[in-house]
Amino acid sequence: MQNRKKIAIVGVGLIGGSLALQLHEKKLSSKLIGVEVSANNARDALEEELVDEIKPFDKAITEAEVIILTTPVNTLSKLVPEVLDKIDNQIVIDLGSTKYDIIKSINGHPKRGRYVATHPMWGTEFSGPKAAVRGAFEGKAVILCNKEDSDRDALEWVEKMFTKIGMRITYMDAKAHDLHVAYVSHISHITSFALANTVLEKEKVESAIFEIASAGFESTVRLAKSNSSMWVPIFLQNKENILDVLKEHIAQLSKFKEYIENEDAHNLKALIIDANKIKRILK
Amino acid sequence: MQNRKKIAIVGVGLIGGSLALQLHEKKLSSKLIGVEVSANNARDALEEELVDEIKPFDKAITEAEVIILTTPVNTLSKLVPEVLDKIDNQIVIDLGSTKYDIIKSINGHPKRGRYVATHPMWGTEFSGPKAAVRGAFEGKAVILCNKEDSDRDALEWVEKMFTKIGMRITYMDAKAHDLHVAYVSHISHITSFALANTVLEKEKVESAIFEIASAGFESTVRLAKSNSSMWVPIFLQNKENILDVLKEHIAQLSKFKEYIENEDAHNLKALIIDANKIKRILK
Repeated sequence: MQNRKKIAIVGVGLIGGSLALQLHEKKLSSKLIGVEVSANNARDALEEELVDEIKPFDKAITEAEVIILTTPVNTLSKLVPEVLDKIDNQIVIDLGSTKYDIIKSINGHPKRGRYVATHPMWGTEFSGPKAAVRGAFEGKAVILCNKEDSDRDALEWVEKMFTKIGMRITYMDAKAHDLHVAYVSHISHITSFALANTVLEKEKVESAIFEIASAGFESTVRLAKSNSSMWVPIFLQNKENILDVLKEHIAQLSKFKEYIENEDAHNLKALIIDANKIKRILK
Repeated sequence: MQNRKKIAIVGVGLIGGSLALQLHEKKLSSKLIGVEVSANNARDALEEELVDEIKPFDKAITEAEVIILTTPVNTLSKLVPEVLDKIDNQIVIDLGSTKYDIIKSINGHPKRGRYVATHPMWGTEFSGPKAAVRGAFEGKAVILCNKEDSDRDALEWVEKMFTKIGMRITYMDAKAHDLHVAYVSHISHITSFALANTVLEKEKVESAIFEIASAGFESTVRLAKSNSSMWVPIFLQNKENILDVLKEHIAQLSKFKEYIENEDAHNLKALIIDANKIKRILK
């Protein structure tokens, strides 16, 4: 591993802030420069000592050797080409939850090689610098996409960075990435949001309903606290894949509905036994 | 509190076994007698020292002062009247997740007063005696239904029992209970089962899908490991309420589908902001 690097983090919220803590702890950074459009977030990021200083975008880009972009995915497809236009030989990575549109936005860009597309599979339902978690990312998967389009030195540094903070690297084509995350991340958020709305709708007339909420309810609904500024752009950028999964999920729910309507214990049992196969994967 | 009582637990699985541990720990039992139709469960219950001995149903009923029924809800609506036919002055309680059908099954029974209808809001996705958890139930809610139909001494003992094991008692009419649990427990299980089947369906052709599963996915899907023998009877006994919630949930999911199809960021954001109101309830 080379010497520590000056690292700019554009967007010092839950993800950027948690990564900043790890970059410092694992001695990957000689200096951490935050860029924030929100004055509140900028203040909180300094107060929580996530970054050493807050600088304007252009200054941070120029000074840093590594630039990490952690803004919502709709802004990333504008920001990544903009940053590549401005850099010399810096390494640029983004941590967005979709990859295809972002990569498409810099297709053929002369600095394409300086960019590494990444998606660390970690998050919580909270947001902002104060939600940053020490030791986050450890033991989790990170997906690197289309690595053959990144310069070797940039890719190697990014691989070492994720390895040092304890992540397990998986490589994927951007299209496959977007499909897979629709199944193992994006759909879970939609079901949680929809479940919260289902129950909140009922609560208007039945105020006692939450006194008895159990841990099972809490675990299926907690993602419904997640931030709309992050998730609306993800749902729109990954529209086609998400619609496929959502249609399948509604079809699966409709089977439960049909079998319950028909009091078909045999088929209900079969559906549940199928679902129990998830034990192979979730211990 | 009176002296310790001889307590029979009919069904020494996850729930019965976890309760047995607490009854002993809180010095509520002078003796714990297990009743089990499964020879494996009987052996495991003794091995884990959940109960002092396993006895045949009739002998256990006769010997015990308190009889706790923890079998699946379809068997409870036969078992509760059968037990009331056989007892003298014992206290009988069940811990089932539905209450209306069970209470209906003993409407007008001469021993109705000896029975207390209860539903402790605790469980995990695992089952059997080996899944029993020490300290379970603590800090959770327990619902007592139609308490005016229980004899005062029976009700008081049961209230003291739940208080001693650390539960927060809520009273409800059986009909209201069944409606409320459809919202805060039963629907969560259906969405988890359906989500597991959605993803497992995809996994047949995309085997890499689970390498990248995140904590969010795990929390929304973990209930899909739950046991069909417990849940099929619940879905059928609480059919009408569950169908109401399920239809509302499918309607909520269909809104997400429609707004994603139309790339309607404004309305998607409004749906998520509505869902975020769950923060009022889940901290």
